[in-house]
Amino acid sequence: MSKASNIPYKIYLEESESPRAWYNLRADMINKPAPLLDPATGKPVTEDDLRPVFCDEAIRQELDDTTRDIPIPEAVQDFYRMYRPSPLVHATFLEQALGTPAKIYYKFEGNNTSGSHKLNSAIAQAYYAKQQGLKGVTTETGAGQWGTALSMACAFFGLDCKVFMVKCSYEQKPFRREVMRTYGAGVMPSPSEATAAGRRILAEHPGTTGSLGCAISEAVETALELPGYRYVLGSVLSQVLLHQTIIGLEAQTALRKYDIRPDIIIGCAGGGSNLGGLIAPFMGEKIRGEADYRFIAVEPASCPSFTRGRYAYDFCDTGRGCPLAKMYTLGSGFIPSANHAGGLRYHGMSSILSQLYHDGLMEAVAVEQSRVFEAAQLFARTEGTLPAPESSHAIRVAIDEALKCRETGEAKTIVFGLTGTGYFDMAAYKRFNDGEMNDYIPSDAELAESFSKLPDIHE
Amino acid sequence: MSKASNIPYKIYLEESESPRAWYNLRADMINKPAPLLDPATGKPVTEDDLRPVFCDEAIRQELDDTTRDIPIPEAVQDFYRMYRPSPLVHATFLEQALGTPAKIYYKFEGNNTSGSHKLNSAIAQAYYAKQQGLKGVTTETGAGQWGTALSMACAFFGLDCKVFMVKCSYEQKPFRREVMRTYGAGVMPSPSEATAAGRRILAEHPGTTGSLGCAISEAVETALELPGYRYVLGSVLSQVLLHQTIIGLEAQTALRKYDIRPDIIIGCAGGGSNLGGLIAPFMGEKIRGEADYRFIAVEPASCPSFTRGRYAYDFCDTGRGCPLAKMYTLGSGFIPSANHAGGLRYHGMSSILSQLYHDGLMEAVAVEQSRVFEAAQLFARTEGTLPAPESSHAIRVAIDEALKCRETGEAKTIVFGLTGTGYFDMAAYKRFNDGEMNDYIPSDAELAESFSKLPDIHE
Repeated sequence: MSKASNIPYKIYLEESESPRAWYNLRADMINKPAPLLDPATGKPVTEDDLRPVFCDEAIRQELDDTTRDIPIPEAVQDFYRMYRPSPLVHATFLEQALGTPAKIYYKFEGNNTSGSHKLNSAIAQAYYAKQQGLKGVTTETGAGQWGTALSMACAFFGLDCKVFMVKCSYEQKPFRREVMRTYGAGVMPSPSEATAAGRRILAEHPGTTGSLGCAISEAVETALELPGYRYVLGSVLSQVLLHQTIIGLEAQTALRKYDIRPDIIIGCAGGGSNLGGLIAPFMGEKIRGEADYRFIAVEPASCPSFTRGRYAYDFCDTGRGCPLAKMYTLGSGFIPSANHAGGLRYHGMSSILSQLYHDGLMEAVAVEQSRVFEAAQLFARTEGTLPAPESSHAIRVAIDEALKCRETGEAKTIVFGLTGTGYFDMAAYKRFNDGEMNDYIPSDAELAESFSKLPDIHE
Repeated sequence: MSKASNIPYKIYLEESESPRAWYNLRADMINKPAPLLDPATGKPVTEDDLRPVFCDEAIRQELDDTTRDIPIPEAVQDFYRMYRPSPLVHATFLEQALGTPAKIYYKFEGNNTSGSHKLNSAIAQAYYAKQQGLKGVTTETGAGQWGTALSMACAFFGLDCKVFMVKCSYEQKPFRREVMRTYGAGVMPSPSEATAAGRRILAEHPGTTGSLGCAISEAVETALELPGYRYVLGSVLSQVLLHQTIIGLEAQTALRKYDIRPDIIIGCAGGGSNLGGLIAPFMGEKIRGEADYRFIAVEPASCPSFTRGRYAYDFCDTGRGCPLAKMYTLGSGFIPSANHAGGLRYHGMSSILSQLYHDGLMEAVAVEQSRVFEAAQLFARTEGTLPAPESSHAIRVAIDEALKCRETGEAKTIVFGLTGTGYFDMAAYKRFNDGEMNDYIPSDAELAESFSKLPDIHE
């Protein structure tokens, strides 16, 4: 028990210990992530190229790979105070249930109405949009956490918010939609008839349940057409990882405060924002030679970008209207099986994390749904909190590593990111409770077909 | 802003500041609450009378009106550490939106998977059941918060848990049910065919959507029939208010730490557990003449026990099998309109709070649904958290009091209990968002009819 060692069960930082700046890991990276390319010219995109789509400050942050510390605006710090600092929790009850000598800590980002870490970047992006005098923003959402977070942020600053929600989520999660409406957002199922991109995808794939890549195309198109609107994104982009470093910075401060040194840091990975934010300051230490850690990215076996994807330039969206990013990708046309629960459905991966993985600084593991929900259930029953399916990928691997410690007798220290709660994912839990969960894994042939459509870029 | 005065936005106590004992307000009350009566004899119930229904320790706590401090068992303190101390939040953004000189604080009990304060008593009651070597417990749940809390507590201690869920909630909130199942509980809609009480009510009121009083009858009957089972209750009883004093004790410590003196303390009231727990230590100060506060109980206009009920002995359950309690009641046969959202549907009120109200130590206000949801929406958009409909009753009156301060220019300090989150109440929010909320208020004739069936007790 943590009592014995004077480490509280939950470590909360004082407000005075909260970070005042985000940490831009790219400044410390030896091999920088490859630049975004303009699909028309094959040349790196400029600020001017991106200006019609993104807010000006977002563009500056996206392209800046040299400034190490980026100040968090006062208004964003004020908002952070509503739900941050988030606790770093010592999972003593889980340790006991596993009978492991390992020490397990988790950084819990679910104590806010968006139910996840997504609010960290949503409020920053909404703030920059407001500062620029915009009328509103557009975005996509998969499981619904990002859309909820952005709705909350826009309500706070009085911005309009238009959300394209992946159709299968829109239908399976009417209550997520209702939360967004309560915060004043407009929510459309994607693909929709409202955009050219949506109509094209509906014509090519009638009856499709949608994908994040497709919803992105629709949101970007809408932002380009409406005066005073820009597009914002909840993951993948380097600016989003930057905002999410608040997670890792707080965790680092909390761990140092109690002289806890992690051996392994684990996060789930869809587009990479939570993982990138959690590991960034620790990865910085590793790159600078100040400390060594194992980093493990956990992805669903049904959407395995790191473990089975190609490291190549690819479109960020299905409609192929966005810039090209060099990343581990399953191909921008890849749509994960509809029976895959929750988020982590994006075809690609953050270019920062892709570079780190390519350079051997990070590991990756793919896990199947039913093992993820087994871990989720054990976690819920021992640690109380019912976790999001996404977060439960990290729980699964944290448990697996702790069980290895039980075999070897090593008392390793494991830190993982508990990105959110599963309160809007009970349809998936019901499938698990009813024994009807399906572990779909894409075939090699399916992936080969998708890879064959990757754009032909000569670097 | 709180920054200026060095009061943090959220006041978190250290674990070392956490209460080690619950506070038994009855020990300080000058007029003690009237005793429970055996309906057969009309005499006060004894420990032996209650033993077939309740756990032994629960009975001792129920009948003890003299011991002021009751130690919190170590195992319960350990569990509390998972989600407590809960924050006392300075609602600066709400203050700004209202343009009020009032200072508004809320004690937020929603940061756990049960989504409410109910876990505070659930874990205590599950612990005592486990200590007694029982196999399991039965209970009822209305909106589902209590059932979820008890499921979590039983999973933690490895107890079986059988929940009778009021039918309209069972049908409107399938995801609540699924949370309980994830924690291993069995959930039945009430009235059910599984009990004599349920069959009788179904025969008398075919098509009924159920009531708490009815679900209680079924849960008690089941506990009496199954060997190794006892019945537990999530509100109304004095033992439950006792466990909930953890809310008020933490709030008191947090307020004292920053030298904040509340003028008004506000809580929503269904059976009274949250309100009783929040106000208890402050009421103790008032009774002992150490301080003065205004206490306001807020109840739904559709189920107005305090403001329109009778102060009389009545059955705690619809099946009339439980002891009689002296309380403000609408009659044990009263069933609130099905269009009333969420909890606060109980026909009676805690005997402790009833006595305090009768003695003029507390005020009560009834509010209509649509005004409650207006307050909920404003709160969500300014303070971030999407509140439970129950909690939003307290928000409504806190806002009303703050608006009075805007008129008078007084900088009163208002503390209210934000008992939980509304994540499983989105069907009700949808009705509000769609403009379809209905403000049903029972007629005088309806209440008179219900009062006519009150038991004839000569005290």
